[in-house]
Amino acid sequence: MAAAERMVVVGGDAAGMSAAAQARRLRGPEELEIVAVERGRFSSYSACGIPYWVGGDVAERDALIARSPQEHRAHGIDLRMRTEAVELDAAGRRVRLRGPEGAEHWLGYDRLVLATGAVPVRPPLPGIDAEGVYGVQTLEDGQELLDALEQRVDRAHGSGPGAGEQQPRAVVVGAGYIGVEMAEAFVRRGYAVTVLEKAEQPMSTLDPDMGRLVHEAMCALGIETVLGAAVTEVRTDGQGRACGVVTEEAEYPADVVVLGLGVRPETELARRAGLPLGESGGLLTDLAMRVRGREDIWAGGDCVEVLNLVSGRDQHVPLGTHANKHGQVIGANIGGGYATFPGVVGTAVSKVCDLEIARTGLLEAQAAAAGLQFESVVIESTTRAGYYPGARPIHVKMIAERRSGRLLGLQIVGHENAGKRVDIAAVALHAGMTVEQMTALDLGYAPPFSPVWDPVLVAARKAAAAVRKG
Amino acid sequence: MAAAERMVVVGGDAAGMSAAAQARRLRGPEELEIVAVERGRFSSYSACGIPYWVGGDVAERDALIARSPQEHRAHGIDLRMRTEAVELDAAGRRVRLRGPEGAEHWLGYDRLVLATGAVPVRPPLPGIDAEGVYGVQTLEDGQELLDALEQRVDRAHGSGPGAGEQQPRAVVVGAGYIGVEMAEAFVRRGYAVTVLEKAEQPMSTLDPDMGRLVHEAMCALGIETVLGAAVTEVRTDGQGRACGVVTEEAEYPADVVVLGLGVRPETELARRAGLPLGESGGLLTDLAMRVRGREDIWAGGDCVEVLNLVSGRDQHVPLGTHANKHGQVIGANIGGGYATFPGVVGTAVSKVCDLEIARTGLLEAQAAAAGLQFESVVIESTTRAGYYPGARPIHVKMIAERRSGRLLGLQIVGHENAGKRVDIAAVALHAGMTVEQMTALDLGYAPPFSPVWDPVLVAARKAAAAVRKG
Repeated sequence: MAAAERMVVVGGDAAGMSAAAQARRLRGPEELEIVAVERGRFSSYSACGIPYWVGGDVAERDALIARSPQEHRAHGIDLRMRTEAVELDAAGRRVRLRGPEGAEHWLGYDRLVLATGAVPVRPPLPGIDAEGVYGVQTLEDGQELLDALEQRVDRAHGSGPGAGEQQPRAVVVGAGYIGVEMAEAFVRRGYAVTVLEKAEQPMSTLDPDMGRLVHEAMCALGIETVLGAAVTEVRTDGQGRACGVVTEEAEYPADVVVLGLGVRPETELARRAGLPLGESGGLLTDLAMRVRGREDIWAGGDCVEVLNLVSGRDQHVPLGTHANKHGQVIGANIGGGYATFPGVVGTAVSKVCDLEIARTGLLEAQAAAAGLQFESVVIESTTRAGYYPGARPIHVKMIAERRSGRLLGLQIVGHENAGKRVDIAAVALHAGMTVEQMTALDLGYAPPFSPVWDPVLVAARKAAAAVRKG
Repeated sequence: MAAAERMVVVGGDAAGMSAAAQARRLRGPEELEIVAVERGRFSSYSACGIPYWVGGDVAERDALIARSPQEHRAHGIDLRMRTEAVELDAAGRRVRLRGPEGAEHWLGYDRLVLATGAVPVRPPLPGIDAEGVYGVQTLEDGQELLDALEQRVDRAHGSGPGAGEQQPRAVVVGAGYIGVEMAEAFVRRGYAVTVLEKAEQPMSTLDPDMGRLVHEAMCALGIETVLGAAVTEVRTDGQGRACGVVTEEAEYPADVVVLGLGVRPETELARRAGLPLGESGGLLTDLAMRVRGREDIWAGGDCVEVLNLVSGRDQHVPLGTHANKHGQVIGANIGGGYATFPGVVGTAVSKVCDLEIARTGLLEAQAAAAGLQFESVVIESTTRAGYYPGARPIHVKMIAERRSGRLLGLQIVGHENAGKRVDIAAVALHAGMTVEQMTALDLGYAPPFSPVWDPVLVAARKAAAAVRKG
């Protein structure tokens, strides 16, 4: 007997499969048939974990897989791998699927979930598609890179004694989150690492003054970090293999080239179906994650734009933690419950070796673009009481609205135990707190955890004083 | 020329000297004379650091001293050491001081700050005052204990080959914050450690179920932790030196005995002067930290009660982080500025070896006593993404009000990187958030920092579900 309704999910990673699993929890197979399609070979994996797998911190690929296709099927979800949705007929409530062998057919739906993710930015430069140039967006990408690195080691070891001792060279293009994480991965693998960034700072998710601290720290870690580096070409050798990266200024030899230039929403299917897209190309949804103006289509994960609660504007924030929340919300709503995703405050945290980098809220430029006037302060403190072993430097920048004193943003560059302090500000942003209110926050204190004034409190005091004067 | 006004500060540690320093920043010596008296030999030190100094993590006593008497004097504060305020004549606006040599005199004030701190609880048991029984409340206490430990080593080394190899034994009475921190200190010094606790759990600042996890972990660390242990006597040897602790059930031999039974407000001076005291014996103040009903007396630090913003009741919370805030507020107000201390939410964090323990808000019993009905949930997760090296277990308990779903409290027992997550809930408590709202918090995520669902989010989801059903 056919189920009363069919839910079709396009995209088998965090958002899509969370939606499927949550809907299944709420409605049994007799009520709701769930078909999910994934064009790749893996489902429900942590793409964020790929740099740590490449770097050797994570030994097994499968450790990154939260739930295999078999497990999903065991939960009553008809997950079809290596199957792509090539056309969406929204009026006819059906998608055209292309299976692993290339055969196509239409599948009707009552409820559709678009969770098509994002694709890496790949500028059309000579040599960019050569062998030896890798992205790290999917598990397939990661596997391909690792296989190549292991072959390289074999080649090196095979070419006579001593040859294996020459330090191999990795060039990472882009110094955003993925770029710095991949830099760490290659440092851990013993590579000489060069990071090329076209902006005048690494981590454009930080203000320039905080980005400068990251730059200094990366150089101190032995990672050659070249700013203002406009890549013009990937140089290839006689076998058509990447052997260097050329910028307007110089050429950087490379045994391996990794692209970390960010991603853009993968919404070609949606665009051709006439669904509403935002400035970034991401799908636009309502608070229940339903595509705006559509009764029967939801969208979540890296293919949507989300509301930034601080700026009041939609933006593209491709992060696994949001994708999982979206999936839960979509699944709850399709499952007959009720849930919303109110928006983000722009929190992100990352590390490169022992340097921790975090931000939430708005940068100065974002605040200005949103029409806000603000005061900014930067303080330096330590991650533990100054006298406690392992106390390390932490820089905190805090941005507060003029007059109202409302917190607008926080940025952290520091060492062990620095990064997650961003959560204090993230919650304060959700709550619309002023920096004056933040000076009184009752935060956890003991010498191994914090100075008696937590660095965030020190920043709040300085920001509150700036607001009073400003 | 005499200054226009005189500020007198009683107590030369965090609250008192922060008040003095802040007032001095705002008003110069020609406007405000500042006299501070401290009965001990040290000023402005971190009592919270003493366990780490005893344990050897902090090598130098002076590392715990934020500002010496000389430095305070260089900032125009007339700090008089080993000087006690023995009587307060509030009507006459004067205090009677007893100097280091015992001479007494009256000193008038325009503004008085009481920052007399707390005194350790010391039950009147036989032997409790014997040599070899130590408190760890003041730097003097810590010095005395360390001197004794070093003498003991000398004795042991002096008594022939092999004698130094016998593992020395420490008995810690009380398994609260100080007790567990001192247990760690003695573990680090190579002692066999026994902790005696009269309650049925260690850390009575946690609910029993979470306390049980601490108990298990302490035992796993090799710390003999005896619950329901009512101490009846400290046994002394022929020289009147403590050599064991006797409970109703057993006797525990000891080379050293440390008392960690908590503290009570030191407010004898205030009580005799008729100032208002709360149930705990702590001074009662208004939001500007002015003693209730008094125009010219302020109080802060471990000698006051503070408002718990969750229960709406005053309570005694002796913590250096609050004392510093109180001092800032008092100094700002006396200095002609404006500041308030709105209250606490009951946050505390501690560790014993690699176990981290934290809490904020109300325990179940406290919530019930405040007339609140609630739902409680406990979840287990990891401190980092499960596949990331160093991911360690973390248990989170969340308590939410019935019907409203308002967060009431959070408790954490976990390992590295677990404890400071309590700040997320602390800020949410300040903001009056519901657990449903908390499920959408945009917290920092990357595999080295958190699972894709931060443990606090997992707890919030479970708590929100419990509230919906409850």
